[in-house]
Amino acid sequence: MKNIKLTLEYDGTNYQGWQKQKIGETIQGTLERAIEELIKEEVEVTGSSRTDSGVHAKGFIANFKTESTIPSNKFREALNYRLPEDIVILKSEEVSDDFHSRYSAKGKTYSYSIINRDVPSAIYRNYYYHVKKKLNTEAMEEACKYFIGTHDFNAFKSSGGSVKTTVRTITDLHIEHSGDIIKIYVTGDGFLYNMVRIIVGTLIMVGNNKIKPCKIKDIIDSKDRKKAGNCVPANGLILEEVYY
Amino acid sequence: MKNIKLTLEYDGTNYQGWQKQKIGETIQGTLERAIEELIKEEVEVTGSSRTDSGVHAKGFIANFKTESTIPSNKFREALNYRLPEDIVILKSEEVSDDFHSRYSAKGKTYSYSIINRDVPSAIYRNYYYHVKKKLNTEAMEEACKYFIGTHDFNAFKSSGGSVKTTVRTITDLHIEHSGDIIKIYVTGDGFLYNMVRIIVGTLIMVGNNKIKPCKIKDIIDSKDRKKAGNCVPANGLILEEVYY
Repeated sequence: MKNIKLTLEYDGTNYQGWQKQKIGETIQGTLERAIEELIKEEVEVTGSSRTDSGVHAKGFIANFKTESTIPSNKFREALNYRLPEDIVILKSEEVSDDFHSRYSAKGKTYSYSIINRDVPSAIYRNYYYHVKKKLNTEAMEEACKYFIGTHDFNAFKSSGGSVKTTVRTITDLHIEHSGDIIKIYVTGDGFLYNMVRIIVGTLIMVGNNKIKPCKIKDIIDSKDRKKAGNCVPANGLILEEVYY
Repeated sequence: MKNIKLTLEYDGTNYQGWQKQKIGETIQGTLERAIEELIKEEVEVTGSSRTDSGVHAKGFIANFKTESTIPSNKFREALNYRLPEDIVILKSEEVSDDFHSRYSAKGKTYSYSIINRDVPSAIYRNYYYHVKKKLNTEAMEEACKYFIGTHDFNAFKSSGGSVKTTVRTITDLHIEHSGDIIKIYVTGDGFLYNMVRIIVGTLIMVGNNKIKPCKIKDIIDSKDRKKAGNCVPANGLILEEVYY
C-alpha cells in the first residue's frame, strides 16, 4: 500500500464544502470519484480540514492509500485531466504510511479578503467580502496582537462540532492593506468551528470603532460567544497552507 | 436631456462581450434593460470599447441620454439594485451634452494576467491565462520598449472591423511580476481589434525565447499579421481605465 499526499487548490464557490454530504457536490466527493475512475479501486480520501461551503483553498492537503502502480508524482496530471477546472492538484507525492492529512497537521494559515468601498466587486465577488463603511485598519492591526498566543477561544466558536478543548495557539495574525483591499492572515496550530470567520467579524467591529482594540482580551477571557463579532461570509476565506 | 456617464466594473465570463448581439447576453443589453426598467423610457447606451466575450473591465465607461429626473449620482445605487452581481456601477455622474464615451476617449489602459506555473489556477481560472513553460520575463520587459511610440500596428490586428488607420500610439507597456503571476499593463490612445491580446501573445513568444526582443521592431515594420504571435485568450484581459 502506498500513501499518496495531494496538495490542492480549489474554488469553493460551487461546492457544499470539503466533506461528503448526502445531497450536493463536495470537494471530497468529486476528488474521490476522479481517483476511483483513475485507479479502478475504491478509496477514502482524508482531508486536512472540513472547509465550509464557499470557502476556497490554495494549499489544501489530502491523502489516500492505494495499491495502484501509478508513479506517485503522476497522479497530479492524471487527476487534473479528470477533475473539473475549479479543483486543481498542485502536487502529488508518496509519504510515509503513518501520514494523516488531518491528524499529522501541526498548523494552518488562512487568509480572509475584504473589499472596503462603496460598492461590491463584480470581478472578485466570490473571493472578497464587501464592507461598505471605511474600516479603521490601524485599530484592526492593534487588535490583532491580543489574539496572538495560547488562549481558550470558546468565544470564537460556532456551536456544532465536538472538540476536547477550545484552547488554541495563534502564532500570527496580521493585516495587509492595499487600496480598497484588506487581507487578514492568521496562522495557528488549529482552529475551532468558524473561528477564523468570527475573529474577522470581531476585527471588523474594531475597524468600525464599535470595540476598542484592548477589549479583545476581555472578549477572549469571557469565553462568551455573544461578546465576539459576527461570523463573516465564507466567500472571503482561503485555506492558504497546512504545516506538518 | 441629461447626459449620464457611468463607470462600470464587470466580470465578462458569462457574457458575449459588451456589444448587443442577436443571440446571447451582453453587457450592453443587460445594462440597457436595467436602465429602461428604472426610468421607463427607451435608451441607447454607448460604450467606450467593444470588449470581446470573456474580457473583463474595472473601469469601463458608458453614457446615455435621458429625460429622467432621477439625480445623476443616484443612478449608481438604483442600477446596482437591478443589475446582476457580475456587473457593478462604480460611479454615475452628469456630463456635458457632447461627451461620448467612445469618441471622446483619449486613451485606455488594459492589463493582461498570466499564471506561469505547471498547472492552471482553480480560483482565478477566469482571470488568468495559464502558461506552463517558465517565461523569461527579463526578455519580455526588454521587448516592451520596442512597442512604445507611434507605429503602424497592422501586424497586431485581427481581421474584421473597419478602421481608417492602423497607426496607434502606445505610451506605456510594462510588466509586473510576483511569484507565479505576470501582469502586463499597456496604455495607448486606442487599440486595434485584438491588438492587446496579440501584443501579449508576441511577448509570450519572446518569453519562450522564440523571438529576440530586438526583433519586435522588424515585426512592427513588416505590418504582417503572420509575423506576430498568437491572439491569447480573452479571460486574462481587463480594461482598467479610460482617459478623457
